[in-house]
Amino acid sequence: MWKKTRLTNQLNVALPIIQAPMAGGATTPELVTAVSNAGGLGSLGAGYMSPSEIRQAIKRIRELTQAPFAVNLFIPEKYRATPTQMQKACDDINQSCRELDSKIAPINPPYAENFDEQVRVIIEEKVPVFSYTFGLLDTKWIQQLKKNHILLIGTATTLPEAKALEASGGVDLIVAQGSEAGGHRGTFLEIPEHALIGVMSLIPQLADNMTTPIIAAGGIMDGRSIVAALTLGASGVQMGTAFLSCHESGVPKVYKQTLLNQIQDHTRLTRAFSGKLARGINNQFIEDFNRKDAIILDYPIQNALTAKMRVAAKAQNNINFMSLWAGQSAFKCRSMGAAELMASLVKEVETCYARSDF
Amino acid sequence: MWKKTRLTNQLNVALPIIQAPMAGGATTPELVTAVSNAGGLGSLGAGYMSPSEIRQAIKRIRELTQAPFAVNLFIPEKYRATPTQMQKACDDINQSCRELDSKIAPINPPYAENFDEQVRVIIEEKVPVFSYTFGLLDTKWIQQLKKNHILLIGTATTLPEAKALEASGGVDLIVAQGSEAGGHRGTFLEIPEHALIGVMSLIPQLADNMTTPIIAAGGIMDGRSIVAALTLGASGVQMGTAFLSCHESGVPKVYKQTLLNQIQDHTRLTRAFSGKLARGINNQFIEDFNRKDAIILDYPIQNALTAKMRVAAKAQNNINFMSLWAGQSAFKCRSMGAAELMASLVKEVETCYARSDF
Repeated sequence: MWKKTRLTNQLNVALPIIQAPMAGGATTPELVTAVSNAGGLGSLGAGYMSPSEIRQAIKRIRELTQAPFAVNLFIPEKYRATPTQMQKACDDINQSCRELDSKIAPINPPYAENFDEQVRVIIEEKVPVFSYTFGLLDTKWIQQLKKNHILLIGTATTLPEAKALEASGGVDLIVAQGSEAGGHRGTFLEIPEHALIGVMSLIPQLADNMTTPIIAAGGIMDGRSIVAALTLGASGVQMGTAFLSCHESGVPKVYKQTLLNQIQDHTRLTRAFSGKLARGINNQFIEDFNRKDAIILDYPIQNALTAKMRVAAKAQNNINFMSLWAGQSAFKCRSMGAAELMASLVKEVETCYARSDF
Repeated sequence: MWKKTRLTNQLNVALPIIQAPMAGGATTPELVTAVSNAGGLGSLGAGYMSPSEIRQAIKRIRELTQAPFAVNLFIPEKYRATPTQMQKACDDINQSCRELDSKIAPINPPYAENFDEQVRVIIEEKVPVFSYTFGLLDTKWIQQLKKNHILLIGTATTLPEAKALEASGGVDLIVAQGSEAGGHRGTFLEIPEHALIGVMSLIPQLADNMTTPIIAAGGIMDGRSIVAALTLGASGVQMGTAFLSCHESGVPKVYKQTLLNQIQDHTRLTRAFSGKLARGINNQFIEDFNRKDAIILDYPIQNALTAKMRVAAKAQNNINFMSLWAGQSAFKCRSMGAAELMASLVKEVETCYARSDF
């Protein structure tokens, strides 16, 4: 049965199941707390949220649960674009999405929220768990987070990245993001295309070489995939796509319906939406940018440029210009509340382990 | 314990473990029969072998075992190259491998063995199991193979490919090749780069939608990965890289040593060696072709062109110009006999299943 492990003790949760932090509105306080109240760890994907929005969401989460939860931020990185590149990028986006009638024009910085201000909210609010993606955390932040007894979860897509996280000090758990995973690749030391390792290979690679417990991410949607990940050496799992189609998820209805309509993998890796490699269900915007010789600016500039397009697509229920982030197992999405999904997962895992023959 | 399943009954083996057919000399009769004699299914990778070489290898296999074994062939496909393209391809290869002092020059067809003649040997020899890769089998061959009670195993990398195999009639088992797998991609209906689905996603996708039993391939190297694959819904596993480093494997010593030296995934997908996308340990030839604007001819022309280079590389123990096919879990390679590996796998699987808590 579900035993106490180092990971569940660290997180102070009953189940080694983490709802992935998905930035962009999916992880409503209702979703986060439904998972935490069910014994897992809900996570707020706060990468794109302003400091005051983060504070407000944390307040709402605390109204809905007393259980632990996580907040996730994006480690900032260098970017640049000349005015000519910026104009060309706008032209390419506009050419693709002209049916939306949404004119994209060059914009000025800042292209993303201020990380220092975001992380200060995490510390001031003393959130139980802070998870981060796209890189390493500065020592000054690690020290302040630790001083406030905030548990740290880093994200790796290769063994060198996991080792870099461990070497940076203070990381309590490491998410191993397999190539199956939906959304942005967490790769930060290598070319993302060279860091697409399947869960079947990535988990043993990290679990055998690290002392930090490993959390498997990518393609995990049901009891059998949870058991498979734990069998490979993971101490827990992080599931994103599985929660996107839950009632509490904040993604548009047409996005949920698209997930529920999948019967096989139709995802692609693309930089078209944000400038950073990410996996989503293939659509016209991805196809257009894969086909033509379009310019794609560095993250987060490209992300800021396409924001207006994505808002228009949402308003018009047009899935061809939404970023339909999803993993390779999206075909296993279910339409139910997050508590019901968690209960189903527990039952499926128990059924899996009850099979004594092989 | 190891129960009889539809798959083990079909194959008439004790263990649902198939040693992958790896063309190019790895699968010696000694390797094939060590696996079959240990209760698994050994496979001869005969794609590049002449009809008489195949017949001779089958004869040798039958001297060494009475157990079932498989022979694998490549389904032929269309190809073309103009004389100008051929010359440019030679120039590009020569520029990369000049240190070998092996001049590659344009060659005339045939670029591969004659498939019809190869398959005729399979039928005449009434091999127990025939597995095939890169496509569907013609109805006339399916009928003749079936009439001779030869079991058929097709290879799929996506659900549509698995369905096409089932629809072609006569397929008894389907290998699901995950993106982790080493060697050539078996993709035949889609762009290979769009058919890189991790085992964690691919197995449930196929197992839930097919009645034909599914054999998982990709990243499977030890007991825990076998159990993970079976948990996901596979009826058996096919392991290639794990057997490459066995004493009986026919690959060069420096290749085996390179496998044993891996501590993390260093593989790349490339068309440089054969014209067809394949996964191998990164080396200078792959890097050269990834970097420059080189021409790569259709399979099997490119394969025929690089043959002389690969022979020279082998003679000179130069791993920079060998095709070091390997999966993403090559870091788990062991130096031992195949019988010892099989015994270890059995023990590891049993240990995995003996764990009653989770």
